[in-house]
Amino acid sequence: MNALPSTPLADDRWLTATYRVAAPASGIEARARAIAVEQSVEMPVEAIAEPRILEEIVGRVDSIEADGPDHHRVRVKLAVETTGFEVSQLLNMAFGNTSLQPDVELLKLDFPDAMLAAFGGPRFGIDGIRKLVGAERRALTCAALKPQGLSPMALAELAGTFTRAGIDVVKDDHGIANQSYSPFAERVKAVQHAVAAANRESDHRTAYAPTISGPPSALIEQARIAHEEGVGMVLVAPMLIGLATFHELVREHIRVPVLAHPALAGAQRIAAPLLLGKLFRILGADATIFPNHGGRFAYSPQTCRGIANCARTPMAELKGTLPVPGGGMSLARVPEMLEFYGRDIMLLIGGSLLAEGDRLPDASREFAGAVRAN
Amino acid sequence: MNALPSTPLADDRWLTATYRVAAPASGIEARARAIAVEQSVEMPVEAIAEPRILEEIVGRVDSIEADGPDHHRVRVKLAVETTGFEVSQLLNMAFGNTSLQPDVELLKLDFPDAMLAAFGGPRFGIDGIRKLVGAERRALTCAALKPQGLSPMALAELAGTFTRAGIDVVKDDHGIANQSYSPFAERVKAVQHAVAAANRESDHRTAYAPTISGPPSALIEQARIAHEEGVGMVLVAPMLIGLATFHELVREHIRVPVLAHPALAGAQRIAAPLLLGKLFRILGADATIFPNHGGRFAYSPQTCRGIANCARTPMAELKGTLPVPGGGMSLARVPEMLEFYGRDIMLLIGGSLLAEGDRLPDASREFAGAVRAN
Repeated sequence: MNALPSTPLADDRWLTATYRVAAPASGIEARARAIAVEQSVEMPVEAIAEPRILEEIVGRVDSIEADGPDHHRVRVKLAVETTGFEVSQLLNMAFGNTSLQPDVELLKLDFPDAMLAAFGGPRFGIDGIRKLVGAERRALTCAALKPQGLSPMALAELAGTFTRAGIDVVKDDHGIANQSYSPFAERVKAVQHAVAAANRESDHRTAYAPTISGPPSALIEQARIAHEEGVGMVLVAPMLIGLATFHELVREHIRVPVLAHPALAGAQRIAAPLLLGKLFRILGADATIFPNHGGRFAYSPQTCRGIANCARTPMAELKGTLPVPGGGMSLARVPEMLEFYGRDIMLLIGGSLLAEGDRLPDASREFAGAVRAN
Repeated sequence: MNALPSTPLADDRWLTATYRVAAPASGIEARARAIAVEQSVEMPVEAIAEPRILEEIVGRVDSIEADGPDHHRVRVKLAVETTGFEVSQLLNMAFGNTSLQPDVELLKLDFPDAMLAAFGGPRFGIDGIRKLVGAERRALTCAALKPQGLSPMALAELAGTFTRAGIDVVKDDHGIANQSYSPFAERVKAVQHAVAAANRESDHRTAYAPTISGPPSALIEQARIAHEEGVGMVLVAPMLIGLATFHELVREHIRVPVLAHPALAGAQRIAAPLLLGKLFRILGADATIFPNHGGRFAYSPQTCRGIANCARTPMAELKGTLPVPGGGMSLARVPEMLEFYGRDIMLLIGGSLLAEGDRLPDASREFAGAVRAN
């Protein structure tokens, strides 16, 4: 194998990918090197003649450290230039082929500040959402319109109930899309109308976030309708529509804060804090929903804290993304969640409010009240 | 919990998702039921009052069978109506939230024929690609332009060499996108020109497949340029751009056969035959690249056969998708691969041809010749 040049790396020309690799100490150096090659030139390095490619394009193993029995944490420098400064190609370079190798998990990506600035991050961020719903310092609340199958009128009635109760954000259930029983245009008109009316009546500033989904042409059309109807936010599942499509949708076609949903984001072998926290933030999510620990999903407290940290902590000039833990939460857990996450948070309670039946208005008021009291 | 109606299910109104679940016999019935609810209404069923939703929308456990120690195979009926007949929502209903639960793998999806017809499948299929390159019955060959970092002129020279050698399809390396060292427009013009010239000179009918990638606006622009330059095929990684974006791109903007690349498709906890074989086919891939067993990747012979079967076997009125095994293949493995897959196949050899250095033209001719001789 050719000796590789060891020129010092200019910080702004390389990003760092950290992988967790299932390999014993005896094999990790070769495995790490293979990953660096797979994720850059994807061919035998000894067959590359051009010094510029060896110097500027081939990935480099930066460090290797033990991380549990027969596992290692490998940091690889990848040339920023290989990403073409574009989202789908960034994913390709960070994890494209290596996603096909089950011994590797993508843990972290560290970008030069200029790259973060180019992607742009949230346009409204935590402060923008606070301003929208009129909640300067307290934690926020979110409820979901469900089940799918309800008519636009029934969903609108539910939205009115949540709004009068003082819930800050009322979102479509993530399963509600553009189905025959509640077509997008008709539903968004009815629900937004109900939320606006209930806001006037109750002096709340609840925002409705309809689900925007589908292929690019549908996304653009739905964004147009949502703006026409005057919705306050939108809900998008970045992994369902693709991260590059998400980024362009947000930057070119959406003029309100974006709430990201984690559908299809759990099985990527990409660490949840990186995907749901950092990447969704960089690509423009103003808030990010994730499964809270101790609910229907298996995320640990540590994973949840990692997501919240990636979403909220200072990162170059990027605005913060509001963490939205949910997934099987109930009123009883509100104090503990506020204790765990602090106030820069939006608590999402879905099914357990609806399970209250006739007590739904009261239960919703109790939820909003408990969070507002903090 | 409410008793659920047990009306017989009309075949064309339900699709069947098969999951492999890590759960012991004692817990599997409850777990299966929870998945059916999670993937449909995502709320406590006892809180749903409308009989129509219970009858027509809530998912139903169809069967449960043991599948290895403490694992079960669970078939769930999901209402077709919940998908809105749209790709991103189909993924959402099949695996959106459940992807966040690590005990579940999505193994299979079985669709009503009308749904398959609506998605459409390959527009050219195996026969269309055979016609394009003039190979009526034999297996086909594919080589890759790499490494990224080469100039358009250097890539064009390489493409000319492959074409004169009689390789059927010359594709961009999947890492080549729209980078500064080989911008899309300039590269596609140069490479297509070289391939066309070498075709005239050698009487071959080699097709060049450039990588199309990026957000929707870039995909459309690159497709336009590719057509203007007269390329014979295009290469697209569906998981990098999102399956719904892929489907619309193929149906609305691409007029040549599409070769699908598996980048980012390996870590989905969706079985490879379903994703790389069946779903890519349904959404319009005319050929599908996957890692052959015994190469750099960990796919088993059984997985590879499963992918090829899903791609090629009769499925409603859909055309077949050409399987393209690759990933660390070499000339020495050609006879064995032809034996394993038969002739409806395209063999991809990448790095190992380039590793031949000055012998590249000869090695490429040997590869093309060995496959043509069968």
